[in-house]
Formats: sequence, structure tokens, C-alpha cells
Amino acid sequence: MIDIFQSIESEVRSYCRDFTDIFISAKDSTIVGESGGNYIDFFAGAGSLNYGHNNAYIKEKLVDYILKDGITQGLDLKTEAKRYFLQSLNDYILSPRAFEYKVQFCGSTGTDAVEASLKLAKKIKGRQGIFAFMGSYHGMTLGSMSVTSNIQKRVKDSPISGVTFIPFKTNGTYSFDSITYIESILNDDHSGIEKPAAIIFETIQAEGGINVASSGWLVRLRNLCDIHDIILICDDIQVGCGRTGSFFSFELSKIVPDIVILSKSISGLGLPMSIVLLKKELDIWKPGEHTGTFRGCQFSFVAGAAALEYRNIIDLDSRTKEKGEFIQQYLLNIELVKTEIITIRGQGMIWGIDLTKINRPGLARQVSKRCFEKKLIIEVTGRNDMVLKIMPPLTIDKMLLLQGLEIINDSLSNCIGMDSL
Amino acid sequence: MIDIFQSIESEVRSYCRDFTDIFISAKDSTIVGESGGNYIDFFAGAGSLNYGHNNAYIKEKLVDYILKDGITQGLDLKTEAKRYFLQSLNDYILSPRAFEYKVQFCGSTGTDAVEASLKLAKKIKGRQGIFAFMGSYHGMTLGSMSVTSNIQKRVKDSPISGVTFIPFKTNGTYSFDSITYIESILNDDHSGIEKPAAIIFETIQAEGGINVASSGWLVRLRNLCDIHDIILICDDIQVGCGRTGSFFSFELSKIVPDIVILSKSISGLGLPMSIVLLKKELDIWKPGEHTGTFRGCQFSFVAGAAALEYRNIIDLDSRTKEKGEFIQQYLLNIELVKTEIITIRGQGMIWGIDLTKINRPGLARQVSKRCFEKKLIIEVTGRNDMVLKIMPPLTIDKMLLLQGLEIINDSLSNCIGMDSL
Amino acid sequence: MIDIFQSIESEVRSYCRDFTDIFISAKDSTIVGESGGNYIDFFAGAGSLNYGHNNAYIKEKLVDYILKDGITQGLDLKTEAKRYFLQSLNDYILSPRAFEYKVQFCGSTGTDAVEASLKLAKKIKGRQGIFAFMGSYHGMTLGSMSVTSNIQKRVKDSPISGVTFIPFKTNGTYSFDSITYIESILNDDHSGIEKPAAIIFETIQAEGGINVASSGWLVRLRNLCDIHDIILICDDIQVGCGRTGSFFSFELSKIVPDIVILSKSISGLGLPMSIVLLKKELDIWKPGEHTGTFRGCQFSFVAGAAALEYRNIIDLDSRTKEKGEFIQQYLLNIELVKTEIITIRGQGMIWGIDLTKINRPGLARQVSKRCFEKKLIIEVTGRNDMVLKIMPPLTIDKMLLLQGLEIINDSLSNCIGMDSL
Amino acid sequence: MIDIFQSIESEVRSYCRDFTDIFISAKDSTIVGESGGNYIDFFAGAGSLNYGHNNAYIKEKLVDYILKDGITQGLDLKTEAKRYFLQSLNDYILSPRAFEYKVQFCGSTGTDAVEASLKLAKKIKGRQGIFAFMGSYHGMTLGSMSVTSNIQKRVKDSPISGVTFIPFKTNGTYSFDSITYIESILNDDHSGIEKPAAIIFETIQAEGGINVASSGWLVRLRNLCDIHDIILICDDIQVGCGRTGSFFSFELSKIVPDIVILSKSISGLGLPMSIVLLKKELDIWKPGEHTGTFRGCQFSFVAGAAALEYRNIIDLDSRTKEKGEFIQQYLLNIELVKTEIITIRGQGMIWGIDLTKINRPGLARQVSKRCFEKKLIIEVTGRNDMVLKIMPPLTIDKMLLLQGLEIINDSLSNCIGMDSL
Repeated sequence: MIDIFQSIESEVRSYCRDFTDIFISAKDSTIVGESGGNYIDFFAGAGSLNYGHNNAYIKEKLVDYILKDGITQGLDLKTEAKRYFLQSLNDYILSPRAFEYKVQFCGSTGTDAVEASLKLAKKIKGRQGIFAFMGSYHGMTLGSMSVTSNIQKRVKDSPISGVTFIPFKTNGTYSFDSITYIESILNDDHSGIEKPAAIIFETIQAEGGINVASSGWLVRLRNLCDIHDIILICDDIQVGCGRTGSFFSFELSKIVPDIVILSKSISGLGLPMSIVLLKKELDIWKPGEHTGTFRGCQFSFVAGAAALEYRNIIDLDSRTKEKGEFIQQYLLNIELVKTEIITIRGQGMIWGIDLTKINRPGLARQVSKRCFEKKLIIEVTGRNDMVLKIMPPLTIDKMLLLQGLEIINDSLSNCIGMDSL
Repeated sequence: MIDIFQSIESEVRSYCRDFTDIFISAKDSTIVGESGGNYIDFFAGAGSLNYGHNNAYIKEKLVDYILKDGITQGLDLKTEAKRYFLQSLNDYILSPRAFEYKVQFCGSTGTDAVEASLKLAKKIKGRQGIFAFMGSYHGMTLGSMSVTSNIQKRVKDSPISGVTFIPFKTNGTYSFDSITYIESILNDDHSGIEKPAAIIFETIQAEGGINVASSGWLVRLRNLCDIHDIILICDDIQVGCGRTGSFFSFELSKIVPDIVILSKSISGLGLPMSIVLLKKELDIWKPGEHTGTFRGCQFSFVAGAAALEYRNIIDLDSRTKEKGEFIQQYLLNIELVKTEIITIRGQGMIWGIDLTKINRPGLARQVSKRCFEKKLIIEVTGRNDMVLKIMPPLTIDKMLLLQGLEIINDSLSNCIGMDSL
Repeated sequence: MIDIFQSIESEVRSYCRDFTDIFISAKDSTIVGESGGNYIDFFAGAGSLNYGHNNAYIKEKLVDYILKDGITQGLDLKTEAKRYFLQSLNDYILSPRAFEYKVQFCGSTGTDAVEASLKLAKKIKGRQGIFAFMGSYHGMTLGSMSVTSNIQKRVKDSPISGVTFIPFKTNGTYSFDSITYIESILNDDHSGIEKPAAIIFETIQAEGGINVASSGWLVRLRNLCDIHDIILICDDIQVGCGRTGSFFSFELSKIVPDIVILSKSISGLGLPMSIVLLKKELDIWKPGEHTGTFRGCQFSFVAGAAALEYRNIIDLDSRTKEKGEFIQQYLLNIELVKTEIITIRGQGMIWGIDLTKINRPGLARQVSKRCFEKKLIIEVTGRNDMVLKIMPPLTIDKMLLLQGLEIINDSLSNCIGMDSL
Repeated sequence: MIDIFQSIESEVRSYCRDFTDIFISAKDSTIVGESGGNYIDFFAGAGSLNYGHNNAYIKEKLVDYILKDGITQGLDLKTEAKRYFLQSLNDYILSPRAFEYKVQFCGSTGTDAVEASLKLAKKIKGRQGIFAFMGSYHGMTLGSMSVTSNIQKRVKDSPISGVTFIPFKTNGTYSFDSITYIESILNDDHSGIEKPAAIIFETIQAEGGINVASSGWLVRLRNLCDIHDIILICDDIQVGCGRTGSFFSFELSKIVPDIVILSKSISGLGLPMSIVLLKKELDIWKPGEHTGTFRGCQFSFVAGAAALEYRNIIDLDSRTKEKGEFIQQYLLNIELVKTEIITIRGQGMIWGIDLTKINRPGLARQVSKRCFEKKLIIEVTGRNDMVLKIMPPLTIDKMLLLQGLEIINDSLSNCIGMDSL
């Protein structure tokens, strides 16, 4: 049989080159491949499957909706499904936290919501500049790409007008004091850099290598934006929706960003959807000023609302924190971690194993491939692709979680070997 | 009961301000509102519902897939659903036309696919310029917005580096010879405008006011691009997927664009999806150079493949042509058209009724509102929103189509009135 | 003896490749070369020597100033020399015309003054766009280059953000109606082009090929800017200072631009100097917002003031008009012109002989070289360098003028030849 | 008598607001005002009068040239005057140092030469980025302004595409390690910042506040550029031409920049002129690719050549070093310096007195005004204009130098007062 992927799919395809099976079905944290294998999923659709594959609770709601000929595509019309979603978001998320955000539905991708938030910030402040952080990832459309730090993703010489990249404060060995640096720029009339409309940040830079901002740092960032009248935009696309043990990743720090961007798991089942939450006073949009055909995917609204119910019913956050600690403890006990040959970073249920110190190009990908042979799907990320990213569905069964961690541990030992150290 | 839309949805919402009901369910070309009304849909999800709401054939395939726990979110992994889609696209569309396109899956929105195509064109040619047409609409993310001609959609002073807008040759009264103009620019060493990487165009500018390019014009455009080594990109997002009576809107002219962008109805059910078709020799992407979480919406693949089967089974194109002629004949017989007080333009099953000549601001929107009162949903578009856009599902029942056209005719008479002419 | 030019001067040098002698001294319209030759100058320092080389009246004033240890460099301090210049400009130029311009001294180059005017226009209007004309030349620094239409002068992919090039209405065969076109753009909400801060133009595009705007066209341009609240900037660097038979080139049309840029002959002797004239109400500059060390070249002020006296004393404008007619009559009587094989365009004492119709690459340069052998210095310009530019000092002796024209006529005959036609 | 400056000179004028006399003549380091006063000049035409006002040796050569009707304006033709300059530059400057630079004549302003160098660097490397330093000043035309760090000088939201500002390593209290920081950016695939075509720097940032780069820092910068294949551009406009005690300011460090920009004092008498020195292998310019009418100011060539002779005859560098040490010793003995209440920085004959620590806005300008009352002209510079800039002609008489320093010392005491400390 001819390989239709090889034959007519563009060379741009990527993950399928490492995870080479053809995938058929999936349930919770397990994926079934055509080759017969059952894979443990530590990838979770790059963070879009926090509730697991085909979550029974969510799926039932969706199937009911489909069977009764519920609307599929509603643009920005008022629909029953959108009302259900807005009500759930309000009841389960916004009201309990006293967050007075307005909700903007964007064109079904995270990058579209990032573009909307940057556009709005510039409109509000009448300034063109944006500060972003080194290690950031915000998307691949031109505006989002301009604040994304991964240079390889860009077409050479794309215009990056008005964006200033700032080193990110990590919990690793790097000790750049970003906040003081930004302060010094803003207070210097000869810095060459004008006050930006907004600062966009992630609490945990997933693509940058699982770099975690501390609560203290976030508080300083929030204060800085208050003092200098800058809009603070939190891109919570990958680590929001419960990934860190609270719905929003910034809750631990108690800061409230001016704008929050959600996507990936917001739709519950991995369907396309993205929203921008913006403080009421920032909602100066004129009707239709940012649009997109797929901002009204009703399946996403139904599944997304169900997911919010579901996470409430099972008290997902407590479980996430508990499983997160379990992962951390497991990793801390890995011999290579204890001997500080490899480094771990993370929070809640996103963890990175950084192999940078072992100076061997391609090592993390090699480990990932070994894991895949052992039926675990795990992605690499970070600078030079040297970090293994642990990001299973939040709902993963604890035995399966352990099994996955064991595969990683074994694969690390296999690939690194004692002689090479 | 509190109005949750009013309360927490952003002011950016737009269509819902005109079509004020809350919509519950829909079947084929009819939408049911909470107020009890059944609306005839001449809007078709802005072109994403060519096969009607909840098309039975397509929906059955999707429900089967969901019930067997088919994968929902697959990023760019190889999956059964994607294989099914690629195979169908190849068998029903590409092979019969001997089109040797590669298929790139983009981040589920049309604008994302536009961004990918512009990025690729710049990469291939090593030039930064793009030519676009006045009246164009290509999307709202920064790169797409830079080639979108609707100024109101932009935040003031957004950087539009390297984009040159060219007047579009319409079948209206405007007689600018775009091709000769472009030739003169490219051949003039003092034009100030460098040779672009690509020219992006729509065969029918829907947002610009249903401006239809003739086959002759398209052939000249294709030749110009060949002579000057410029990539020709057809944005077929709104009028592709059968809208004009052939799968691609450019088939009548027999030209073959270098890159074709599809979205909206490509997923069959109105679910988010977009693809770029690119000539094999242009596929110089490196793995992962343009990505997006939702480029692997499996529901869209399943429904999209089913839609391609469906259109083949019922010979949709013939029916579209026939119904298109029916619409045209109907419109030509409207008194105001015959007396040339209003103008019509269109092809296949997309038609515009242009009220510009009756110099009354807001008139088209007034007609649209009258239609809505009579249970017809019809959008306004074009310069100053002066064009009514007729775009029902291609599968619309002929009686319902007639009923809709009658409502338009009545509403036109009501709103325009004889005294005002 | 080693050729120091060949040895250490950059390859960027240009005119010296065609006019190969080493020049020693010059008087009025004659230049003396080291090879012994006396050259008639139809080039006039690219328009900076309108009063001839070493004009006796002007030079005497300058030498007196130097000998009394007058200040050379004064930045923007108040000096006797600057007062002398301002007073002369006011008395001889501004007051008689009732022009209420403020005078801004710029960094001694025309391009610097262009940059200042664009910067000011953007500041005033709060818009970023500029309209410029195809065929324009405004300078080589980034801002000026962005409104200069000669693509070869640019480094590939320089950012040209916000500049829209419009075809120029010429008195040639080209019949583009620029004003109507601009109107249509500004009135179209789907033109893709935002209202600019300013339109910058030359009344005669010298580098574009001696394209002369008619008075009627200038009046329409002025009206258009009034109606749409756009700043009208006249770059009078090359054809101002009396070149067309009035001090400003736009006087015939009776329009008054909002901003006028002068350089080249403003300093009288060919010394570096440039000024911006701006309507009083536009003078919203803050102190020091546009600076430059050499905006205070006192030699230029002294010579520039003397030049204004001189042109008044000898009634230069009348003489220019008379000699201009003489040139025109001479050219009209050239056989190749009468037979319409070659075309002439011009006004006052700037004329172009366009050889484009004789489709022979390099022909104009060949004629220029032949002239040089016959001791006439004449430049080529325009599209593909196909236009000979006649631009002698305005003060040229009539016999010398005739002698130069004869050389051109002979050289044309020599180079074109009857057989090749 | 009406004040013509007030009446028709633009509000953009700046220095004349502080130094309010009308200046008539000048000799060496003394300027004569209309009010009768003789001013000591510690300003030196912003660095363009290193050889003093109306330097007798230089002036004699120029007057001879003028009297024999030497050419004034030569564009880029080969002339006797240009040959004289090139030969002198080669004999006195380039050859003795074995510098194999080619010489590009630019449009008579420093900013024009900066633009040319940036354009060339981008052309050579095929990259668009430039790194510049915070505190830098490179000029006011768009390209130069984009690498100039003084935000107030910019019109809001000017496009600054591709420029990255880096904190400058000073000998002050600020201890940012710029070189390590740049290294970290260039080695990080997630820095968001692409490798630049060039780094442009000043050895002493005059406008930034007299910030002096150490030789060690310059060597590291040179190495970094070698390792990463980046063009190193030294803007030596203000502190070149002998200001630091050697002709080029970077000679002490023994580095050789790839491109050096000279202007200001290169013409000897303060006349407009600028040149770019570029390594032979970088001279890939095509003829005419960067032009400008005033790149051939022959007076500047004659005076500039004479200046090079003069500095050789009197061994200017030794004298500068000696007087520089005298200044330094004098400043170190000022009570406020000894008690570290004010800070001094400098090298050769450029020194800054930094009053930042005394937190009183406008203080430096107040001191400058007091000095002016006492007939000393001294500029303020640096962040918030808090630094007094000592920059007399290099040829200043030692008694006059002392007199000027005493005026500063007195004025400092007057303005600061013991009670306020």
C-alpha cells in the first residue's frame, strides 16, 4: 500500500517523524497504534488533552449535543452552546476568584488569541512596542512569531518591529535579574527602547525548556507593569487549564494579569478553541475589530463547558498537585539527578529533565526514541532540544504514570550509560 | 435571567448584534432560534457550511468515529483519520485534475494557512514583498491582515512592510487594468516597488463586495507570474470547496495557482480546519517550520473526508451550477435590477446585490434586518457595507432557496420604496 | 605616479568613471581639467551651481568673511552670518511672495532636510504613511530612500514601511491620472492603504527622466491635500533656486506647499547646505528634535545670502526664462526631435532628451561620452539611463550655451546614425 | 531692530537658547560675540573644531585655493583637491598604521556616513539586524536614528526594525557585562534575536554621558565580532581626529574596526564632510549605490588635507595627551570630585563632569549657564542632561584652558553650594 503521508503531505510535518506509528484510537492516557501497540501518553496533545483522550464525561455531553442536531458552526452568534460555556466559565472559574474578565472568542487557535491580545494592547496604550522573554513561545502567525524567541521557526529577516526580548529569570543556573533590567531600560532616556504597550509572558516557559517563574518574580513583574502603565499579558495556553494544580498557572502568586490567553485544553477534548480574558476596562474593542470564522466552534463550547464541570466534580486540582508531587519525588530519586548530572524543573504536572550538562547533541531525542520503543510518547523541548518534557493528561492513572516514569528512567540509563560520564 | 453574553462577552462580538436570536439547533439550511423561529440560512457560516448544517451523511461518519473512541487531537502525527482525509482528497480532488500538490495542514484557521503560504513564498524567493488586491480579505493575524484591504479592521499604524495593494479588476463599472499596471511596475526601475515574492488573490472577492475576476483576467495574472517568476497564491477559503460550481473556484479559467489555501467548508461540518496546497517543487519546508496545535483536528479530517465522498455521490457541482443559474435569473428579474438602480454580481452560489448607487448609508444593513424579521439570515458586505451577500448552503432545497429570494425581493422593495428613487 | 583614486577610493564612486579627467579649477560655466581641456559644464554640480562656478559676486563676499575670521562652524547658534542669510531670504524671497514660512536649518544635505520634513509631517498628523511618486528621487538615507523610487539604489529588502508609490503624471506619453487614483484610494475603505501624513513631490522629476508636472496637475494635488488634511511637501532641491525661471519651481502654478525643501544651489557656491521651509502653524518642533552638526555652515550662509542679492541684482529669473526658451527652440529644431524619434521635456533651464524610443541600451551614456570627448559635460538620467539631462549654470554665457547644444546635436547624430533608424 | 531668529527660524533651534549672544568671529579657542564679550570655547563646534577656529595654517591653504578659482563642488569627480586629501590621508594616517582601508566620501554629514556603513554591512552579510549600545548617538536620519539610543529625539513609533540595544560597559558604577551578554544572545537559539550584520559602537559615548570603553572591552568586542562573523563599525565622528590623543580613538586598544566613520573635524575647519573607511575586502559597493550631492565639498578636502599636515607638523597627539592629563589632574583636585559627590570620566581632551549623584534636575544646565555668564561656553550632555562636557579645541592655549577650568570650578561651587549637600 502506498504511503499517502510520504506521498502528498508536506515536508513540514514533524512529530510524526519521531512517533512513527499510525494512530487509531485513544482512551484516557493510552493511545492505540495500527502496529498493535498501546502507548502511554506523556505528551497530551502538546497540552490540549489535560482531561485525557475521549474523557467519558465530556464526550457524553458532546455526543448528546451532536445527536440533537446542535449547531456546529456559529461564528459569533449567540447560541445555546456558547451560553452554556460562558455560564460554566463564569460559575466555575471567574466568579469564585472574583475575576472581572470579559471573554473574547478568537479564531480557534492560540496564536490567533495572542495576536488579538497584542493588537488590543497597542490600541489601548497607543504604543507599538511589546516586551517578550527569551525562551518564549507564543505561536507562528506573524504577530505571535514576532514575540516567539525560537529563531529557527522564523523565516529569515521577518520584520520584528517593536519587539524587545528580555532574558527570562529561571530557577536554573541562569541568574539574570529581568525585572531590574526592565526597570533600568524604562528609566533610562538613552536606552534606545521605548516604553512598550505590553509585556507578554508565560509562568512556565514550556518550549523554552520548562523554565518556571517564581511567585516572587511574578509579583515584581506585576508591580513593574502597574508602576509603568504597561499591560501584562499572560499566555496560559500550555500551562493553564489546571496543568500546574490550579486553573490558571499564576494563581499561586496571587497576581492578576490584565489579559489572559487560553487555548489547548480549554475545549476539554482537544478540539480547536481559544479565548482571551481581558479586564473589563480594557474591553474597548469595536464590534468585529478582530474576527475569525472558527471563533464559534460549538463542539468546543459544549465540551469545554463539560470539562469545567468535570474538573469541579472530581476536584481535579488536588489530584494534580498530588500527582505533581509524586512526579517530582520520583525524578529527585533518579541517580543522575541526585548526582546533579541532569537537572529537573517543573511544577504541578509539567516537568522537564534537562540533559544540557551532558554535552551530547541529540541526546534528549535519543532518549525520547528509546521511550517510544518502550511504548511511551514523550516530547523533547528547550534550547537545542535538550530537555525531555513530561506532560501526561492530568487524569492519568497513577500506575500508568509510574510505568511511564520507569520507562524514562530506564531509557535515560540506557542512553547515557555510565562510561560516558 | 441575566444575559451572560451582555454581561461577560467582549464588545468585539459582531454578527449577534444584527441576528439577535439565540440559536439552538440547525438542519440543512434551516436554523432554529430559541424564540421559536425557523430561519432560512443564506449565510452558511460565512461559507463554512457548504454542505448544510448537520449534513446527515457527514455526521454519521463523524458520530461513528467518535463512538469508537477515535483520536480527537493528533497534532501532526500520522493517524487513521488523517490518512482517510488525504486519501479522499487525493482520490476525489487532486488525481482527477492531475494536480500535483502537496498538502500542508495548518493551525485550523484560514488566516493561519494564509500566513504559512506568505512565509513559504518569501522563503522560496528570498524576497520580502507581496502584492495583494484592494477589496481583499485574507484574515486578521498580523501577516494576513497586512494583505487584507479593509482598513477599519486594522489597529492604526500597524506595520505593513512590503505589501503593495493593487486595484482589482471587477466586472462592475470600475475598469482599472490591474495586469497592465503590475507589468508597468515590474518593468520600471523607478517604480519604487520591488518584485514581490508572491501575488495573493481571490477569484471572487467576497468581503470586497462580491467582485468576480473573469477567466481572461486570471489567465493574464497567471502568465504575468510565470514571466516574472512570482508565486501565485489563490486564497480559496470562502469561494472554494464547490461554492462556484467546481471544487476550486479557478477551474473555469483552467489556471493552476502555485499555492491554494482552503479552509471554511473543507471540514464538511463547519469545524475548524485549514490546508495549504503547494506545488511539489515548492515544498521546501523544514520539519516543524510552521506548526500549530490544532493542525490535527481529527473530527475535521473525518468529516472533511466524508464531505468529499458526499459531493461526489450527489454530483454537487452540477446542482450548484443549476441553482446558481436559478439565483441569477431570479435576481435579473428584480425590477430594481432591471432598471439598473441596483447591481448584481456573482457566480455559482455566491451573489451580491449592490445598493451603492442608491446613495443611502446603512441601506443594505436595513434590508438585512428586514429579512431577519422575515426569518432569513443574510449578511452585508463590501465597501461601506452596501452589498447583500447571498450565500446559502450549496445543498439548499430549491423551494427554500426561492422562499429566501422572495424575502430579499420583498425587503428590498420595503426598504427602498419607490418615492426615494 | 600611482593613481590614488584607483588605489584607495571606494568602488562606490560613479561620475568620475564617465568624466575621467582630473579637474583643477572652474569659472562660471567652464571647468579646467588637468589634461589641459576646458569643459563646458551642462551638469552644474547636479544642480548645486546655478550661479556658476566661483561666481565673482558671491565669492567676494565669502572671501571677505573668511579673511576677517568670521565663524566657520556655528551649529545652531545665532551668528552674524546666519542673520545675514535669514534677512536676505526674508527680504528677497519670502516677503515679496507673502510666504509665511519658518526656516529650519538641516544637516547640510538635501536628504537630511527630506528626513526632517517627513518626521515633522508624521509628528503633526500622527499618521505613519507617506505617498511618493514613481520616478522620484529624494535622497539616500533610510527615510529619504524609502520615498525614492529608484530600486537599484536600495539595499535589497530595506524596510519601506508605510510608503505608497503612485505613478506620476508626466507630459510624456504616459497618461495615468494620479490625482483621481489617489482620490479613489483615500475614499475607499477597502483600498488597504491608510491616509498618509504627507505627500512628497517634485514639480519636475529630474532623476526620473525630466518629467514635468503641469500647473493644472499641481493645483489638483494641492486641492486634494487640502480636502483630505494631508501635508504637501515639495522637494525643490534640484529644480528650486531659480532653475525653472522662478525662485521656487511651483510658482507658475500659484500653489503653496505646506513644506518646501531646498538644498543644492541654496548656498550659492555649491557648498553643503539645506533648509526646510514650513508653514508657521506646522512649526511644532521641540528644541533639538532634529539636529545635525553641519546645520550651521557659516560659509554657506554668507555665500547663500550673497547669491540671493546677486539673483536680484541681475534679474536672474528673466534671463533664465529667456535662455530656457532658447534651449527649447534649439531642441525642437533637432531633426530627430522633429521626426519624433527622440523626445524632449523640460522647463526653464532643465531639459531632457529622451532616447527611449530608439531601443538601444546604453545609448544615452554613449552620447554623453561622445560629448565629453568634445569637451561638454552632460549627465544621463531617467529610466534605464536613457535621458540626457541639460542643466547648465543659469548664468551661462549664451554663446557657450549654443556651443554646448551644438556638441549634443553632433553627438546625437554620430551615435544614432541614420542607418540604425 | 526685529529679531529675525525669533521671527522666522524654526522652534527646533536649540543651543542658541542657552548661548544667547550673536556670534561674529572667532580665532583659535576664542569666540567674539556681538555683545562685546570674548568667550572661551569648551564646546568646539560639538567636536568639529579640533584645530581651533580659523586655524591659520589650514585657512591659508583654503584661501589660496579659493583665490585661484579652485573647484568648490565636485560631486564624486576626480579633482586636484580630492587627490590632495586622499594623498594626505594615506601618507599621514593610513600608511603609517598599515591600515588598508578604502575611503568612501559621503554626503557631508556624519549621519549620512553612518547610513552608508549600515547599508553596506547589511549588503555584505545579507542580514538585516544591527546591534547598538544604550547611550549611543549616531545621527538623526532614519537609519542612524534607529541606532541612536536617545528616545526623545525620535518621533513616536518610528520603525526600528532589526535594531537591538545592548547596555554599554562604562567605567562608571554600572557593571553590565555587555560582551558576555551578547555572546549569550548569539549562542542561544531561543534568544529571539538573530545574528546581526554589524555592531556599531563609539569608544567614548559623548552624548551618552562621556562613557569610556576600556581597551580590554574593545579587544573582547573585536574578538566577538571575529568569532561570529559580524562587521564591527566604529563611529569615530566625535572622538576621532585626534580628540583622545591619537588620530583614531581606538588606537590605544590596538583593535582595527572593519569600518570607521569620520566626520566633524575631518575637514579641519568645521566645514561639512564625512567619510567611511572600510576594509578593502568589504568594498563591494556598486558605482553610485550610495551617493549625495555634497560628498565632493572641495573646500573640505583642501582644509582637511591641510589639517592632516598641520597635526603632523606640530605633533598634535603628544600635546593632546599632555593637555588631557592636565585636565584630568585639575578635575581630580576639585573638592566635590575628591569627596566623590561628583564624578569625572574622560580620556585625552574630552571629559565629563557627572552631577547625577546630586539629585537636582537641571543642575548641569544651571552650571553651564553660570559658565556662560563668565564667558565660557560649555555644553551639557548625558542622561537627563546631567553631565558637563569639556571639549575645547585640541590646540587651546594652556592658560586659556586653565582659565576655563577655573570658571567651571567656580560655577560648580556657586551652583551646588555647601548647604545643599
